Amino acid sequence: MALVVKKFGGSSLATPEHIKNIAKRVVEDKRNKKNKIVVVVSATGDTTDDLISSAKKLNPNPPHRELDMLISTGEIVSSALMAMAIDNMGEQAVSLTGQQIGIMTDSSHTKASIKKVKTERITKELGENKIVVVAGFQGKDESDEITTLGRGGSDTTAIAIAIALKADICEIFTDVGGVYTANPRIVPEAKKIKTLSYDEMLEMASSGAQVMQTRATELASKYNLKFHVRSSFTKTEGTIITKEIDSMEKVVVRGVIAAKDEARVTIHDIPNKPGVAAYIFGRLGKEKINVDMIIQSSAHQDKSDISFTVNEDSLAKTLEVMEKAKEHLKASRVASDPNIGKIAVVGVGMKTHSGVAGKMFESLARENINIEMISTSEIRISCVIRRDLCDKAIKVLHKEFELEK
Amino acid sequence: MALVVKKFGGSSLATPEHIKNIAKRVVEDKRNKKNKIVVVVSATGDTTDDLISSAKKLNPNPPHRELDMLISTGEIVSSALMAMAIDNMGEQAVSLTGQQIGIMTDSSHTKASIKKVKTERITKELGENKIVVVAGFQGKDESDEITTLGRGGSDTTAIAIAIALKADICEIFTDVGGVYTANPRIVPEAKKIKTLSYDEMLEMASSGAQVMQTRATELASKYNLKFHVRSSFTKTEGTIITKEIDSMEKVVVRGVIAAKDEARVTIHDIPNKPGVAAYIFGRLGKEKINVDMIIQSSAHQDKSDISFTVNEDSLAKTLEVMEKAKEHLKASRVASDPNIGKIAVVGVGMKTHSGVAGKMFESLARENINIEMISTSEIRISCVIRRDLCDKAIKVLHKEFELEK
Repeated sequence: MALVVKKFGGSSLATPEHIKNIAKRVVEDKRNKKNKIVVVVSATGDTTDDLISSAKKLNPNPPHRELDMLISTGEIVSSALMAMAIDNMGEQAVSLTGQQIGIMTDSSHTKASIKKVKTERITKELGENKIVVVAGFQGKDESDEITTLGRGGSDTTAIAIAIALKADICEIFTDVGGVYTANPRIVPEAKKIKTLSYDEMLEMASSGAQVMQTRATELASKYNLKFHVRSSFTKTEGTIITKEIDSMEKVVVRGVIAAKDEARVTIHDIPNKPGVAAYIFGRLGKEKINVDMIIQSSAHQDKSDISFTVNEDSLAKTLEVMEKAKEHLKASRVASDPNIGKIAVVGVGMKTHSGVAGKMFESLARENINIEMISTSEIRISCVIRRDLCDKAIKVLHKEFELEK
Repeated sequence: MALVVKKFGGSSLATPEHIKNIAKRVVEDKRNKKNKIVVVVSATGDTTDDLISSAKKLNPNPPHRELDMLISTGEIVSSALMAMAIDNMGEQAVSLTGQQIGIMTDSSHTKASIKKVKTERITKELGENKIVVVAGFQGKDESDEITTLGRGGSDTTAIAIAIALKADICEIFTDVGGVYTANPRIVPEAKKIKTLSYDEMLEMASSGAQVMQTRATELASKYNLKFHVRSSFTKTEGTIITKEIDSMEKVVVRGVIAAKDEARVTIHDIPNKPGVAAYIFGRLGKEKINVDMIIQSSAHQDKSDISFTVNEDSLAKTLEVMEKAKEHLKASRVASDPNIGKIAVVGVGMKTHSGVAGKMFESLARENINIEMISTSEIRISCVIRRDLCDKAIKVLHKEFELEK
């Protein structure tokens, strides 16, 4: 008997048939393994997008507090439907909203952070032999206001509940069934990775493997909670994410990933003095623009250039900010390139193995793929290249590091 | 400056345009009259039916607790959308769920009764100059479980809040715009009634004028809260419902109504002894079957027949119960007639005027309309007739009592 938290996303719940299949799977798990089960659900299919689109018809800038009232209903609907489906299969179930449980958050509507998860209610219901179905993505603040955790917040709900309940494992069910050495649509030989460290998972996710929210992985890492990313549709094992373990050290590179929605911005001839970078990235931060790679070069003695990448959705806003920064800093010009892509190799083994970078650059050069920017962490090497060369680069690197083996 | 509670039903909120129109109207009322406003909303359009249909696909008998979790979201969605629409017009608004307000109910899921309405939160928001938008139809019980008040429960929410806040008036906005002397689709000369007593309103509603929930009127009557049933689409005055006032006494009959969805059931030759009626109607009550007219006749010394009417939706269930009652009571047989209708004349003036019944029966006889059952209260006379004669009867009676004047 184990205490298991299982999280199902919206595409796994899109139709009544989908919901029945998940309910059946949960009920079997309870009956066969005598597990205590908490199920966390997202809104079904396109519910959240539909609700937001209804809101925009009435108010192009709906107050965030009201947006949270609105969109939190999507997950409540899912949780009630799931509880009904389980009940229909002869097991007791009870759905709970984030407010009923006491998933306490701060008051940052639409992007709240969890401060504490109360466990009394869930524990009581589990004690009465019920399957507990939790509406993901939501909580409440100290004034009893409904909050939501931002896109993909149900992952965070699941991890946070698993931590609070000291669950044996948290299972994140997805369409893709795990984390792969590369995107199988680009590299057909790509293999599912059996075990990843939290750090590797974070680097994979932040560089384009959209398996789950970075935030949820960070939370799991902080409390050392093991989780299992696996398929909603089959019973095949997926990828277990856990703290770094010895056997991992032998492996140097775990996966290659690409992000094709990046754009590069460069500001030329800024004064070479303290506080300039702080000024630029402070302004961008204020506008909630996430900057990825940053490179500063000093061509002349008293002037330098700064280049960085942003998501292409933020490009227009970024250029606005940068034009103002240009005036303020008396820079010469701002340039941008919306046709770049980012590729990266990730692996905790890199820390102790040299030569990975060299091998990566060499194999790209051999294929005439020009590297425009480079950034590295202890366990990741990223390169900016032309966007249309990303797929080719991924294939080359997957082969070079023998990930198909 | 007055404190006004305004309730809008689902058909008034069916599209974004509808919601904008209502929001505009509310905002104008606040600006022009400086009123403090609480808006109570139902779920938009077919939302509740759609949610119930989703539930039935997963579980033909969904647990009522889960059904409440599910359907309460419809009104929350409406309240958030309405608050956004008002915000977009430059007035501050805040939506509140029944749980946030503290609309405390008993634990009878899907048909809960309100025990208490807390006023702290609403009062605080009104004090901050906000328009408060309340999700109707819902509350919570002492264990923090979400409950709903049954179909049309938003009327009850509005009346209960108006009572708790000591509002100056409660306005119930409807498609029909008021209470008429007869259904205008049957009697084109029918006129809107300016003022009705609670008792008249109750009799009109229970006999087929589907303007608002009986329960809501009973609650208003108990606390002597004046309410105004008026149009969602125009600014014309509707019908004010209040306690009986002097000027009403001159009027004998206020309206004529018909209910065409009734069926009659008769159980023949039951023993003439105490407890028999209690047994029959106790059984029916246990099955939540609402019985309307009841007539007992003693043809023989030791046997009698009992006839009663039920809504035709309940006929099948009623006959099941009655077949068992027949066995138990050793009655001779159970008969039913699904083709009856009920017509009624209503008016508080009847109490002190004789001759209304005679006039009613006479005019029906003149038109060859046979009366099959009669039941009377202090302010209502109802007759069961053939269903296909109901429209004709309504026209005849409307003319007879000169209601077009």
